[in-house]
Amino acid sequence: MMDGPKMLRFLTAGESHGPELVAVVEGCPAGFDIELAKINYDLARRQKGYGRGGRMAIERDEVRVVSGVRFGRSMGSPITLIVENRDFKNWQKRMSVDPADRGEAEPVTRPRPGHADLAGVLKYNLDDIRDVLERASARETTMRVAAGSLAKLILEPFGVTTLGYVASIGSIEARTPADLSIEDLKRITESSQVRVADPEAERAIIAEIDECKKTGDTLGGVVEVVATGLPVGLGSHVQWDRKLDGRLAHVLLSLQAGFSRRGDTRIGAP
Amino acid sequence: MMDGPKMLRFLTAGESHGPELVAVVEGCPAGFDIELAKINYDLARRQKGYGRGGRMAIERDEVRVVSGVRFGRSMGSPITLIVENRDFKNWQKRMSVDPADRGEAEPVTRPRPGHADLAGVLKYNLDDIRDVLERASARETTMRVAAGSLAKLILEPFGVTTLGYVASIGSIEARTPADLSIEDLKRITESSQVRVADPEAERAIIAEIDECKKTGDTLGGVVEVVATGLPVGLGSHVQWDRKLDGRLAHVLLSLQAGFSRRGDTRIGAP
Amino acid sequence: MMDGPKMLRFLTAGESHGPELVAVVEGCPAGFDIELAKINYDLARRQKGYGRGGRMAIERDEVRVVSGVRFGRSMGSPITLIVENRDFKNWQKRMSVDPADRGEAEPVTRPRPGHADLAGVLKYNLDDIRDVLERASARETTMRVAAGSLAKLILEPFGVTTLGYVASIGSIEARTPADLSIEDLKRITESSQVRVADPEAERAIIAEIDECKKTGDTLGGVVEVVATGLPVGLGSHVQWDRKLDGRLAHVLLSLQAGFSRRGDTRIGAP
Amino acid sequence: MMDGPKMLRFLTAGESHGPELVAVVEGCPAGFDIELAKINYDLARRQKGYGRGGRMAIERDEVRVVSGVRFGRSMGSPITLIVENRDFKNWQKRMSVDPADRGEAEPVTRPRPGHADLAGVLKYNLDDIRDVLERASARETTMRVAAGSLAKLILEPFGVTTLGYVASIGSIEARTPADLSIEDLKRITESSQVRVADPEAERAIIAEIDECKKTGDTLGGVVEVVATGLPVGLGSHVQWDRKLDGRLAHVLLSLQAGFSRRGDTRIGAP
Repeated sequence: MMDGPKMLRFLTAGESHGPELVAVVEGCPAGFDIELAKINYDLARRQKGYGRGGRMAIERDEVRVVSGVRFGRSMGSPITLIVENRDFKNWQKRMSVDPADRGEAEPVTRPRPGHADLAGVLKYNLDDIRDVLERASARETTMRVAAGSLAKLILEPFGVTTLGYVASIGSIEARTPADLSIEDLKRITESSQVRVADPEAERAIIAEIDECKKTGDTLGGVVEVVATGLPVGLGSHVQWDRKLDGRLAHVLLSLQAGFSRRGDTRIGAP
Repeated sequence: MMDGPKMLRFLTAGESHGPELVAVVEGCPAGFDIELAKINYDLARRQKGYGRGGRMAIERDEVRVVSGVRFGRSMGSPITLIVENRDFKNWQKRMSVDPADRGEAEPVTRPRPGHADLAGVLKYNLDDIRDVLERASARETTMRVAAGSLAKLILEPFGVTTLGYVASIGSIEARTPADLSIEDLKRITESSQVRVADPEAERAIIAEIDECKKTGDTLGGVVEVVATGLPVGLGSHVQWDRKLDGRLAHVLLSLQAGFSRRGDTRIGAP
Repeated sequence: MMDGPKMLRFLTAGESHGPELVAVVEGCPAGFDIELAKINYDLARRQKGYGRGGRMAIERDEVRVVSGVRFGRSMGSPITLIVENRDFKNWQKRMSVDPADRGEAEPVTRPRPGHADLAGVLKYNLDDIRDVLERASARETTMRVAAGSLAKLILEPFGVTTLGYVASIGSIEARTPADLSIEDLKRITESSQVRVADPEAERAIIAEIDECKKTGDTLGGVVEVVATGLPVGLGSHVQWDRKLDGRLAHVLLSLQAGFSRRGDTRIGAP
Repeated sequence: MMDGPKMLRFLTAGESHGPELVAVVEGCPAGFDIELAKINYDLARRQKGYGRGGRMAIERDEVRVVSGVRFGRSMGSPITLIVENRDFKNWQKRMSVDPADRGEAEPVTRPRPGHADLAGVLKYNLDDIRDVLERASARETTMRVAAGSLAKLILEPFGVTTLGYVASIGSIEARTPADLSIEDLKRITESSQVRVADPEAERAIIAEIDECKKTGDTLGGVVEVVATGLPVGLGSHVQWDRKLDGRLAHVLLSLQAGFSRRGDTRIGAP
C-alpha cells in the first residue's frame, strides 16, 4: 500500500536559443524497439504546415539519444532525448552560462502579449524578459513531441494508433469523410499542406492564411485527435484526478497558444 | 532535493446512496478558522438553482468534522469532512457492506448514456451497474464542494475571494454589468434563481428551462469563475505540468457532465 | 506519456482522542473480497503484546466501512475505513470542534521527549501541545494497520503472504528455527505473548520487560517481516525513487517510535 | 485545493559506460548563483577517498550545464546538468544506440552478488546483464551528487550548511571532538584521506583497508551527515509520508551499496 512513481514520467528542459533541448523519459520497460527515424519524422511534422514562421527553415530537428537505448532497444533505464539548436552558434554569448558574459546581451524589456512574459518577470523578479521568453516559447513543445513520439513507439506493439488532423482553421470547416479508414485518413491528411481531408477546404484555408498574414494576425482552428486500439477502461470514474477527460485536458491546455475566441480549446463530444 | 507530498491533498469517497460521503483534506496548516456554517452555505448553494432534480428536496447536506479541527480552528492534522446521506435508511439492504445481503438488490443492467456506466462495468467486469453508478454520480461533487469550501476558508485571510456565476444557459446570454464590484456581483447573482446578474435574461432562461423539461432534455451553459486578490505568478511556464491553464482544465474537465455542443467546457479568455 | 495517480493511495486522519479514526484507501480494483473480520484481527493484533500500555484495555478497535464495499466486495471506488475511539465520550468537551468550547481544556505545555511535540508547536506556532500530541501518537498507526490489512486482502488471491515476528527484544535474541514453513512460523509466533518462535527466549524477554517496567524505561527490539509469493522484479534499479529498499525504508522509518541505541531501525540483509 | 508538482524534482539518466550522465533538476527559482566550480568540487569529492577503485583515476568528472542557467544565475527553468563519460570512446560500439551494432558486444551472463543484476534481467527478461549493470552501478550516484550539490547552492543563501564525515570504518570508530565548530569539522575531515577528525583512527582505518584489499573483501562504515541553519518544523507529524525521518530514509536507502552486517544503514539518534 505504498505510494511510488508512476509508470511513465518525463521532464523537458532547454531554452529556445540555448545549446540543447532535453527530455528525460523514465519508466519505459526494456525491450521496445526505439526507431529514431520515427521520432525524427514526428519532429519534422511539427515543423511543417502552411504559414509557419521563418524559424522552421533554420531548424531541422534531429534527436540524439544519450541514455536508455542500446542496439536500437530500450534498456529499461531512463531515456534521454536531445535535440540540438542549430542556431545556437549565433547565441553563444547572449545565452552563455558563464557569469563573465553578463552584459553581452541587451535586456528584453517589452513583454509580448499572449505569452507568459509579464507573469514570468513579475513572478521571479527578473529584469530581462529573455530569461522568461526563452522557455515560454513554442520551441519548448519540441521535446513534448519527441517524448510523445517515444510513447507512440511503446504503444505501437499493442496495436494502438494515434492520429491528429485539422477540422477547421479560421472560418473554414473541412469535411472529413466519415467512411475513411484510419490509415487512409492518415495518408490523406499527412499529404495535405494544412492537414485536412478536404481539398476544397484546403484551398480556402490557404487563402485565409494568406489574407491573415497581410494583416499581421493569426487564426485559430480545431484539431481532432484520434486514438484506436485502446483497451476499454482507461481512466476511471472513482476519483477526480483519475478521470481521462480531466487528464487529457491538463495536457492539452498546458500547450502555449494564443487562443482566439473562435479557436478556444475544447474537450468534448464532436 | 527530495520529492515530497504537495501542500494540499484531498481524497473524496462515498457512494450516492451509501451511508456517508467523506473527504480527507490534508496539508492545511494549523491556526485557520474553520467555520462550518460557511461550508454548509456552499453545500446548500450546490443544491439550489432553478430546475434541479427531485433529489435536492431529499438531501439537505450538512458537514460533520471528525478530525483536524479543534475549537473551531485547524490543528494542522488531516481534516475529515463527512456528509450523511439522509436517504440511506431506504437503501440499507441494497447498499449493504455485508456479503449476507447479496441478492437483496435487483442488478441494474441498463447503462445511462453520457455517464461512465458502460465503461465502468467493462473496466471492472461487473454485472451490476449500480456498483459503478453509485460513484459515477453528480452526488460525488458534494465532497468536492466541501473541500473547495474549506480551501476558500484558508485563502480568505489572505484576501483571496472567489465567485462563480452564470453567463449563459441554453440560447440565452446574460449581460453581466462590467462596472459591478465583486461584492455586488456576488450579492446580485447569489439572489438570482439561475445566478445571473440580468433580470431579463433570468426570466428568459427560466422559460427555456421550463420548455426543455417538457421535452425531457437538458441545457448547457457557460459559468464564469472569478478569483480576486491572487498573488502574481501562480503557476509557471517552466514545465508542462506547472502551467495554471492546464491544472485548472484538469479540475474542470474532471467534473461529470453531459456536455452539449453549445456548452462545451472551455478554458480561455472571456 | 501522462502522469497520473498511482495504483493505490491512502490518507489517514483522526486524533488520538477524537471521535473517529479514518482511512481512505483509493485505487483498489473492483471484485476483491473484503472480509472485515480479517481487518479486525489485525487491529486486535496491534493491541496485543506483553507489556502494552493501559490504553489497550480501553480500546477494542473494530472497523466500519462506509464506502467502496458492497455485499462484501470492493466496488472499485475509494474504500473508507472508520474506527471509533470508544473513549471519546470522556473527551467530547476537550476535543470539541465547536469554538464555543474553547477554554474547556487545560492546555498541555510540557513536551514529551522522543515525540514531535516540541517540533510541532514550534512549526505551527501553537500554545497547546494537545493540538500536536493528538496526532503525533501511536494511536495514528491504527489506520495504517487497517489500510495495510486491506492491502493484504488484495494480495491474498495472488498468493502473497506476509508475516511479522520478533527476532529480539532488549538484550534477548530469539532463535527462529530455519526449517519452519511460513504457516508454522506464523502459527507459533502468533500464539506467543511476545511473538517469538523460541519459548526460552519468550520467558527471558518477559522477565526483562517486567524489570524494565519497574524502572520506567522501555526496550528496543528487532522485528523481522517476511513476504512470500512476490513476483520477481518488484521495484527497479533505474531511478532512485523506484528502488524497493528506499521505499520500504520510507514506510518503516515513518513509524513513530522512541528508537533506542540497541533497537535502531535497520533495513538490510538478515 | 489542487494537486501540483512539488517544488524541486529531479530525474537522473545515463549508463555507466554511455556517452553522458544527465540530471534534469526542475523547480529551482530564478536568481540563484549557480557556481559550477562548487558542483565540480563535490563531484571530485565523490571520487576521492582512500581505497577507491581504479575507475576513479579514469574519470575526472566535470559538469556542463545546457539549460536553466544564464550568466551564472538560475533562470527558473529546468536545469540540465551533464557529465561526460571520458571513457566512452572505448565503449562506442559496445554501448551503441544503433541496432546495426548489435552483436558487437559479448553478452554479460554472470550476475554480480550484492547488485541488482539478477533481479534486473529477470524483471525485464533480458539476456545481456550489461543492460542492467550499466545503470545498477555506483556511477549512477554521480548525478545524485551533482543534483545535491545544486540543491546546496540554493540553500546556501539561507544559511543552511551541510557536512558529511566518517564516524567509523570496519572495526575502527573515530572520535569526533564534540567542541569543533562546523567549519573546523569540515576543514579537518575534508583534509583527511578517510574523512575522519581523528588522526589515530585515520591510520588504523587505512591499515584495515589495506588488509581488507588483500583478501578481496570490503568494509562497512558509519557516515554522519550534519545540516545546520535549518528552519524549525521541516517535515511534519500529520501524515506518514510527510515525516522527515521516513523521507531521509527513502533517499539514503536508495543508494546502491553492499550493506555488511556491521555497516547496516541506520537512521537514528547518534
